[in-house]
Amino acid sequence: MRRHVKNILRSSRLAVSLPLIMHNKSILATFTPDFAKSGGLLPVVTQCAESGRVLMLAYMNGEAWEKTLASGEAHYYSRSRKMLWHKGESSGNVQKIRAVRLDCDSDAILLLVEQIGGAACHEGYVSCFFRELSGPFPPGAVTRENIALCCEKKFDPQEVYK
Amino acid sequence: MRRHVKNILRSSRLAVSLPLIMHNKSILATFTPDFAKSGGLLPVVTQCAESGRVLMLAYMNGEAWEKTLASGEAHYYSRSRKMLWHKGESSGNVQKIRAVRLDCDSDAILLLVEQIGGAACHEGYVSCFFRELSGPFPPGAVTRENIALCCEKKFDPQEVYK
Repeated sequence: MRRHVKNILRSSRLAVSLPLIMHNKSILATFTPDFAKSGGLLPVVTQCAESGRVLMLAYMNGEAWEKTLASGEAHYYSRSRKMLWHKGESSGNVQKIRAVRLDCDSDAILLLVEQIGGAACHEGYVSCFFRELSGPFPPGAVTRENIALCCEKKFDPQEVYK
Repeated sequence: MRRHVKNILRSSRLAVSLPLIMHNKSILATFTPDFAKSGGLLPVVTQCAESGRVLMLAYMNGEAWEKTLASGEAHYYSRSRKMLWHKGESSGNVQKIRAVRLDCDSDAILLLVEQIGGAACHEGYVSCFFRELSGPFPPGAVTRENIALCCEKKFDPQEVYK
């Protein structure tokens, strides 16, 4: 089943090697994030290239963007530590870039990655988005009963970050 | 094939109704974005609940969050217009909420939606992330040859926004 899902996803629109559906010089001539727009930092959505799961949201500055393209591994700018952050550098759980997308305003970046180790979240979950409020919508109220964990925990952070 | 992909995705981890894998009171007791953290605005990733495609990145303030939950349709805060923005309000191409996820730091939001009309981007594309730099990585250089359009154009904006 798991393999079957993978094959389907590979052949779907989520796949890395996508056909050139249209050809528009003005749209495709540049592929440069507009870092100046938001004071030098832009939001980056990181998505698993295989499952389509959104893994995390982080930020890049120009240096992180260049290092990501030059190395083929995700680099971010850590707002809390105020420094370049090569994700997984110490643990080896890096994010291998499969594709990079840029939005219409060039002020948001999407990375399609292979997450080595299977977990992107420092709390050990596959995705940082592990809490879910599910339907039906509107929910009336957000209660304990309609919030659930929605992804697997791969490691215990207390064991990994000692 | 298309229906088959849909069925697979429905039964995969991207599906809306996900099982409670783990149970942790401290993690699930609250589901409140920390709007104060970033001056009142948080980034929102909007993903098609059916295909898994990331459609757009936008921002919410507290009011947009509350309106989204109360109405079951995506509301954002438009940074350019400096006002609440009910996506698709005039065209009818709203985003019906299927699930809402919150990240580990409660400072990023993920919406799983049904995009009415099929296109999220004001330029007529299915997704705002319609430009892709594909592999292999590292690419060496970003050239015209390795940038491609990666999603369908559903409408001509010059026809829709007259």
